[in-house]
Amino acid sequence: MGELALIRRIREAPTGHPWLKVGPGSDCAVVTWPAGHEMAYKIDQVVEGAHFVLDGPEAATPRQIGWKALAKAASDIAAAGCRPVAALVAINLRNGLDDTFALELHAGVKACAERLGFALAGGDITSSERTLTVCVSLIGAAPAGQPAWLRQGARAGDVLLVTGELGGSRGGKHLDFMPRVEEASQLRNLAGAGIRACIDITDGLARDAGHLCEESGVGIEIDEAALPLSAAAVSAAGRDGRSALEHVLGDGEDFELLLAVDPSAAEALMKNWAHATRLTRIGRVLPPAAGRTLKRSDGRSERLPDVGYEHGTSAGSPTQ
Amino acid sequence: MGELALIRRIREAPTGHPWLKVGPGSDCAVVTWPAGHEMAYKIDQVVEGAHFVLDGPEAATPRQIGWKALAKAASDIAAAGCRPVAALVAINLRNGLDDTFALELHAGVKACAERLGFALAGGDITSSERTLTVCVSLIGAAPAGQPAWLRQGARAGDVLLVTGELGGSRGGKHLDFMPRVEEASQLRNLAGAGIRACIDITDGLARDAGHLCEESGVGIEIDEAALPLSAAAVSAAGRDGRSALEHVLGDGEDFELLLAVDPSAAEALMKNWAHATRLTRIGRVLPPAAGRTLKRSDGRSERLPDVGYEHGTSAGSPTQ
Repeated sequence: MGELALIRRIREAPTGHPWLKVGPGSDCAVVTWPAGHEMAYKIDQVVEGAHFVLDGPEAATPRQIGWKALAKAASDIAAAGCRPVAALVAINLRNGLDDTFALELHAGVKACAERLGFALAGGDITSSERTLTVCVSLIGAAPAGQPAWLRQGARAGDVLLVTGELGGSRGGKHLDFMPRVEEASQLRNLAGAGIRACIDITDGLARDAGHLCEESGVGIEIDEAALPLSAAAVSAAGRDGRSALEHVLGDGEDFELLLAVDPSAAEALMKNWAHATRLTRIGRVLPPAAGRTLKRSDGRSERLPDVGYEHGTSAGSPTQ
Repeated sequence: MGELALIRRIREAPTGHPWLKVGPGSDCAVVTWPAGHEMAYKIDQVVEGAHFVLDGPEAATPRQIGWKALAKAASDIAAAGCRPVAALVAINLRNGLDDTFALELHAGVKACAERLGFALAGGDITSSERTLTVCVSLIGAAPAGQPAWLRQGARAGDVLLVTGELGGSRGGKHLDFMPRVEEASQLRNLAGAGIRACIDITDGLARDAGHLCEESGVGIEIDEAALPLSAAAVSAAGRDGRSALEHVLGDGEDFELLLAVDPSAAEALMKNWAHATRLTRIGRVLPPAAGRTLKRSDGRSERLPDVGYEHGTSAGSPTQ
């Protein structure tokens, strides 16, 4: 695979700029515009065959494709604790897709921008023969004088919180999820600098928790009994014989926020949380030597399994 | 074609944000970050089969593809009179492209960022079966307290200037051109607010001059005798029997800057211009009723022909 070699190369020899605070490796780049607001800056793409299909029982509608393309990027901006400001969209159409398809795709893009209150600032449209791709760039702003959230910053003793419910997203949620922009804003209002690190769950809880550990240099313990199982995870487990736990840890594309929060801030947060989206304490941050542990419901501890969602039918893999 | 319907729809019903100063329709979006620097914000893509091919006599190398993807976007940032600050790159690989290909592509991307002094801030890599696409987002900054340049703003009486030489780009320049970032910076230093409007030449001089007229609500006269013909335009004319003038007006992908400049600022500019890249006075801005005129070398005036480069083998068409 060319991807992994390329990702390594990009990380090894970054090309910087005095205003670049965070480059490859986090959910977004962070640019310190010479102003009070840090900027989260993101590119993301959805590719036919890798992120959606247009035929068969799992076919996505063009409106869903437009929504998902923008919502995925907005989820990363939320994970940086920022509010989306403006998006650009590059669409590569292909043979066999007509005006109605293109307009419906745009309707999905537009619905997401309007729902979350950011601008569609422009874009580019081309056609080629064989693959539909939708590439999105999004910039977001942290509140004046406050930093963007990163994957690094979690410390032993922090509490692990997660928004919403996990697992089973491929049953439908992955095409019409709501990025946690409002939730991020409320989390920041309630916990301020008590939010130490954040990531959005795209590869699955187990793998994304692992990313948080790597970037912060910490261990974690996740408490099985506390995990907020989605109804879709339970129903997927009923169909395929895997456990709901496996679905929660590995399904991915939940687009929920996983946060490491200072313990006293977490306490205040849980007490004052007033959003319709659930917020759940699912574990804690440990020193690095503790590794990554799953505390089972029966009290046993085991190593957090390395399961996760492989994006795409042909091993697509995001770099950030 | 779905593209045109989509472009119309996007223009008809823009989705805004209080910080968005310029949306779809110019070379870049312009975002007024609450700070001294206006931000030019761009997305662009190069698509196999539309912007380059990997086989045959016109095959591009992976390094050229990486360079072109970033340089095209940088050319738009330059046309906004801004300096590139940070780029994000989303690559969709396809079957049959190996590690060496991916690393060479990245080397081209990196070379462009280093040459022009901006950050590679991150990206995304996926694989799908059938089409290589490279999508780039770039943000650039205007100097503190100065506005980004737009296509609108030209006034009757302004002088039309162009950087470099025109025509014949498909003979090779389109794969290794240097975006006019340094030139834009020097133009701004020398002419300040005397630069009234700017566009980079991608569709061809005739068509892009037309875009400037539409957006500014003006007419123009271009002086054939003054046009800076490239050696490639002359040699293409020798091969295909079309005139060098036709190549200059319609070839496109020159990635030179076309500017409308206040007459006294233009005079000072021509006198003090000290860059290795040529700067040529090629005509003037007229009232809208004058239309778009080509003053031939023999003194006759004719309507500026509507010729231009159709990007892509399958009617790709940029929206901005």
